[in-house]
Amino acid sequence: MDTHATEPAEQQAATDSSAADDTPWLTAREQRLWRAHLEVSKLLEYQLSRELQPHNLAINDYEILVVLSESPQRRMRMTDLATATLQSKSRLSHQITRMESAGLVLRQECPGDRRGLYAHLTDQGWETLRKVAPDHVRSVRAHFVDLFDHDQIDAMYEALAPIAEHLRGLRGRG
Amino acid sequence: MDTHATEPAEQQAATDSSAADDTPWLTAREQRLWRAHLEVSKLLEYQLSRELQPHNLAINDYEILVVLSESPQRRMRMTDLATATLQSKSRLSHQITRMESAGLVLRQECPGDRRGLYAHLTDQGWETLRKVAPDHVRSVRAHFVDLFDHDQIDAMYEALAPIAEHLRGLRGRG
Repeated sequence: MDTHATEPAEQQAATDSSAADDTPWLTAREQRLWRAHLEVSKLLEYQLSRELQPHNLAINDYEILVVLSESPQRRMRMTDLATATLQSKSRLSHQITRMESAGLVLRQECPGDRRGLYAHLTDQGWETLRKVAPDHVRSVRAHFVDLFDHDQIDAMYEALAPIAEHLRGLRGRG
Repeated sequence: MDTHATEPAEQQAATDSSAADDTPWLTAREQRLWRAHLEVSKLLEYQLSRELQPHNLAINDYEILVVLSESPQRRMRMTDLATATLQSKSRLSHQITRMESAGLVLRQECPGDRRGLYAHLTDQGWETLRKVAPDHVRSVRAHFVDLFDHDQIDAMYEALAPIAEHLRGLRGRG
């Protein structure tokens, strides 16, 4: 696994002999946290994806099903869905095409609304979500939630919430 | 943003009237942590990617540069590189092709080793990493590390490390 925000090894050797490097390299403690975060993010996505495979769902598909299921009338404008799932419009469009073939969603124009297409959750999409959600929540418990003790659940949330807020703010301005 | 591991809304209504649902749905506290983790993972990757764009690097490219720079002789067997970066071989192959066009890496057979191709970091790849790393570490600080206080840095690490280990173990068996 990589370290990502440490000083490149030979750069370190080179800059040790100069006073010009004002880069705020991570300390060892910061680095091990950063590395753990990257590993958990990546490995968890991998593991949850793997456990969705028997259901013929990619993890992004599952996310789309959840987002649509929680939207009024189980539908969302494609541009809003792209924002909600942090995807580019073109990538979302490909994904929705796949999910349409699988019968999970339907793309439709909204009568009287010229601002583009909506993605609708189909009944089959809803049933799929109902069927898959119990397995998925067991995966989330087994590989994440249940590995924290009670205090950690709250402490982690309190540490992460301001970061999520900070990043949402940046994204909004983007 | 979605909730991912909560009970689908109408399913909840349906199962409230039956005793048959033994799904261990997340509690409100667990759910807000899970949701914060997903948001931070996704938004952070998005933000770091955006800040690498002026350098014409995708975040996966940066990771490849780091991994190769830390490998003996700045090279790695393609299959090992796929494992290290948690990518499929075919996806890595596409990425290396792009990076090869940009002059950052070189794909070569290893003399006397029939087990396949190596990816080598080129001098240009190394110089790119040297040039980009200071900006990248500033991004990692601004959007993650510096948003924790000192105690949180260690507490977060201690919470995440066992999860990373658990997931690495699963991956190894995969």
